[in-house]
Amino acid sequence: MQGNMMQRQMTLTDVMRHARTNYPNQEIVSVTADNPAHRYTYKESFTRAAQLASALEKLGANAGDRIASLAWNDYRHFELYYASSCSGMICHTINPRLFPEQIAFIINHAEDKIIFTDSMFVPLLEALSDKIKVEAFVVMTNKENMPESKLANVHCYEDLIASGDENFSWPELNENDAAALCYTSGTTGNPKGVLYSHRAMVIHSYASLLPDVFDLSATDVVMPIVPMFHVNAWSIPYGAAAVGAKIVFPGPKMADGETLSKLINEEKVTISAGVPTVWLALLTYLRQTGINIPSLQRVVSGGSACPWSIMEELEQKHDVYLHQAWGMTEMTPLGTYNARVSTNLPPEKQKALRLKQGKPSFGVELRIVDEKGNELPRDGVAFGALQVRGYWIIERYFKQTESALTADGWFDTGDVATLDPDGYMTITDRTKDVIKSGGEWISSIELENQAVALDGVAEAAVIGVLHPKWDERPLLIIVKDGSKELEPNEILASFEGKVAKWWIPNDCVFVEEIPHTATGKISKKDLREQFQNHQWTQEIEK
Amino acid sequence: MQGNMMQRQMTLTDVMRHARTNYPNQEIVSVTADNPAHRYTYKESFTRAAQLASALEKLGANAGDRIASLAWNDYRHFELYYASSCSGMICHTINPRLFPEQIAFIINHAEDKIIFTDSMFVPLLEALSDKIKVEAFVVMTNKENMPESKLANVHCYEDLIASGDENFSWPELNENDAAALCYTSGTTGNPKGVLYSHRAMVIHSYASLLPDVFDLSATDVVMPIVPMFHVNAWSIPYGAAAVGAKIVFPGPKMADGETLSKLINEEKVTISAGVPTVWLALLTYLRQTGINIPSLQRVVSGGSACPWSIMEELEQKHDVYLHQAWGMTEMTPLGTYNARVSTNLPPEKQKALRLKQGKPSFGVELRIVDEKGNELPRDGVAFGALQVRGYWIIERYFKQTESALTADGWFDTGDVATLDPDGYMTITDRTKDVIKSGGEWISSIELENQAVALDGVAEAAVIGVLHPKWDERPLLIIVKDGSKELEPNEILASFEGKVAKWWIPNDCVFVEEIPHTATGKISKKDLREQFQNHQWTQEIEK
Repeated sequence: MQGNMMQRQMTLTDVMRHARTNYPNQEIVSVTADNPAHRYTYKESFTRAAQLASALEKLGANAGDRIASLAWNDYRHFELYYASSCSGMICHTINPRLFPEQIAFIINHAEDKIIFTDSMFVPLLEALSDKIKVEAFVVMTNKENMPESKLANVHCYEDLIASGDENFSWPELNENDAAALCYTSGTTGNPKGVLYSHRAMVIHSYASLLPDVFDLSATDVVMPIVPMFHVNAWSIPYGAAAVGAKIVFPGPKMADGETLSKLINEEKVTISAGVPTVWLALLTYLRQTGINIPSLQRVVSGGSACPWSIMEELEQKHDVYLHQAWGMTEMTPLGTYNARVSTNLPPEKQKALRLKQGKPSFGVELRIVDEKGNELPRDGVAFGALQVRGYWIIERYFKQTESALTADGWFDTGDVATLDPDGYMTITDRTKDVIKSGGEWISSIELENQAVALDGVAEAAVIGVLHPKWDERPLLIIVKDGSKELEPNEILASFEGKVAKWWIPNDCVFVEEIPHTATGKISKKDLREQFQNHQWTQEIEK
Repeated sequence: MQGNMMQRQMTLTDVMRHARTNYPNQEIVSVTADNPAHRYTYKESFTRAAQLASALEKLGANAGDRIASLAWNDYRHFELYYASSCSGMICHTINPRLFPEQIAFIINHAEDKIIFTDSMFVPLLEALSDKIKVEAFVVMTNKENMPESKLANVHCYEDLIASGDENFSWPELNENDAAALCYTSGTTGNPKGVLYSHRAMVIHSYASLLPDVFDLSATDVVMPIVPMFHVNAWSIPYGAAAVGAKIVFPGPKMADGETLSKLINEEKVTISAGVPTVWLALLTYLRQTGINIPSLQRVVSGGSACPWSIMEELEQKHDVYLHQAWGMTEMTPLGTYNARVSTNLPPEKQKALRLKQGKPSFGVELRIVDEKGNELPRDGVAFGALQVRGYWIIERYFKQTESALTADGWFDTGDVATLDPDGYMTITDRTKDVIKSGGEWISSIELENQAVALDGVAEAAVIGVLHPKWDERPLLIIVKDGSKELEPNEILASFEGKVAKWWIPNDCVFVEEIPHTATGKISKKDLREQFQNHQWTQEIEK
């Protein structure tokens, strides 16, 4: 028997209308290349979004067309988010930090119709112009600041706004209509597109706002330092509007401690979100200048595990609580969130919990499985391939017909993790980096953490190398920092008592340099190639 | 173009599984008739819910069957909520405070298959037994406390649990499947059923949890004093599970200041929800005993407008913030919520805002319309019929084929309200009580509020009475408290300068008593009958 409730479709148009109707005078503050202190209201913003949607239509864009952006976090990018998605078009954000070839691939694969770009990315697009096919470019600035350009069919953003009708009639959309597109920055193979539906984004916004997640309210001032060009800035541009929070956009100044601390203090920012290096940059600046940031209460950190030293300094010096979060492009992106832990717990227990990736929000489920797909216990010890399912998880990649899921409907994240009895998840490895020894798994990350803590070690990597008896065995690769003489046997002996005996690497080699990927991570793929014929010198008893 | 995300169905089963997996050891504490201090965990609760679902199946209940309850707020009722809804059956809560004839009507109209009842309602059901047709009764107690009963086919709840299989396999449900049924306590005509879908209840739960609404987190201890027998206790039993909050159920002791204050202090309750009379009872008890309730931070008040005196006393004496909320059975029930207002505002402005019904949560939209259905301005002055639409609003009543909505898809609430430019809604009247004078509307509630504030007035009602020139004119009806001589002309003169001149009632009459409805409200229907032939003594110039 079916319920008798309205079948209202969940769309981002509802988010926009809610903010405009109930929080018309709430502020949006931006740093942009052409204005270091732009300020207006939700009402003005959504009026301009209507004008932009109308102008897009006049440019010949239709429902389903991909409208791309190469842009920083600011009010114009925010307008474009709503103008494209709420008119039935697809907001395709492109990460300008990718290699030019990847950007060209993405533009062509997405078949972008129009590209909106910040002035500073015009040369990048010019260099690609003979490789990509798009109908028009829009430079996100005003007439006075329009750069010279060799691009064909270039428009000025503010002229476009002026030409649009503020009474544009937003269409009624279906909640399963695509709203946005974002490509993964895959380390192997070509980037893959994730096509988000309105429904997934609206439910994800609800979940992201909960008190044990971003905890956003109308009295908050939120500064997203996570880029709007990747996974929709963790959905903050939608969540903030859904609750009427004030937004502060740092524009191109995302890693600039001076700008960030100035914005925090001038706009009374209460919450911010970014990757660990952002917090490091901010803390370094605050340390050097002695500046305080009293309005800031909490920050969200994701993208990679956050070192404890950052969490400690933020809390002890600035009374700012850092929450770790974990997610993926394929997850809109939120998976887990590390909510405030009880201060009744002993400090060491609090620290141990806060270093985990957190608990799943309601709406996403986690499980860990072994190589045969059997579910493993949630005991905090067993680790396996982390799989997810839920209201805002991918089903298949853009333009692919086959499902990206397991036969029983879960998405494999490519991470290896533990789950504890209280629901906390801890990433222990990437699936492709875990070492398979005698049918069991060894976490490369845990061994690296042990090695890098030793005096004299600048950097450490652990990879699995073929072994005649055990399939794979761990090989420890070290870059010395020169402060101390290091002996391989001494280093290997240091693992005893800290990890299971059979986890201890069979060999330790020293190298001048460890190869890195474009995003600064250790390139284990390169290391595995380099050491594929390694001759083992030590045996292991299991 | 459609998005490529998973089509996971939103169901209460997900809520249950989320709490069981991630908050297994969180507590649920209950007062019941057979145990004043029952305590267990979510894990135990949902294990018993599985046993109960299995036992229901053995009793012959199937998907779509209505499983009714006549019960207070406690852990067994909580188990029944999940056991019935998550097995595809429909959890039909019945308000035991209705007239017996209404209860019989509801049971028969719903075609309830099994009725779960607290021991104290057994006599009520016995008295109705020849008027209703159900297959079985279950008394929600253990063997030792089973009452003697003349009911046919009676089971003991704990025996049923013992007979069930804790490995019951929950079915995969569709989100549009019906999950629960609740009848309105209509003042006119027969009660009407609202059949909630899983989808509506899950989205409603998300919205109810937001920081500017109930603001529930895993560290909260929530005590719902709103009955689980009406509109699912404002969805707290679902919301609390979705975030892993501790729940405290007061059982039959819903209006008992002693029990409530004891539970607050012993269980460290942080948030509670109830109607204004509950807060009055609690405050009276605290005043008499000098007891404090330091753990309690905030309460939600709904059902009727809360007097300022209660809000003031809670805040000034106990540092408890009272939030007004407004909703309806047809709205699952949440419509608006009055979030914490800024303490930067002048006290009088804060008070004025807090006396409003609040702002809509994201997911529900409000509008006010005139008699022709034209939308009225959101200026805080114009008032009209309040209409709503959204993700958890009724489309039609149970067993009715025709829509309950306007031609353009809105539900008319039967309330008259203003909307201000910042989204705040204020109820000014019920549509059927508003006075239509010369084509314009006069708010009976506003006039009553003025009158009842006068010295010597015990109670006041204002109704519209036919008038040859103006269609209707307001008649003021007063019960004196005997403390002062009152003159009709003097009373009418007191309105001058406080309301528009044409709002001032044409007459004032004194009566010994004003008639009330079963739920304690002024019966305007009876007053209109009583005064239908009233002879006007005063004229009005408009």
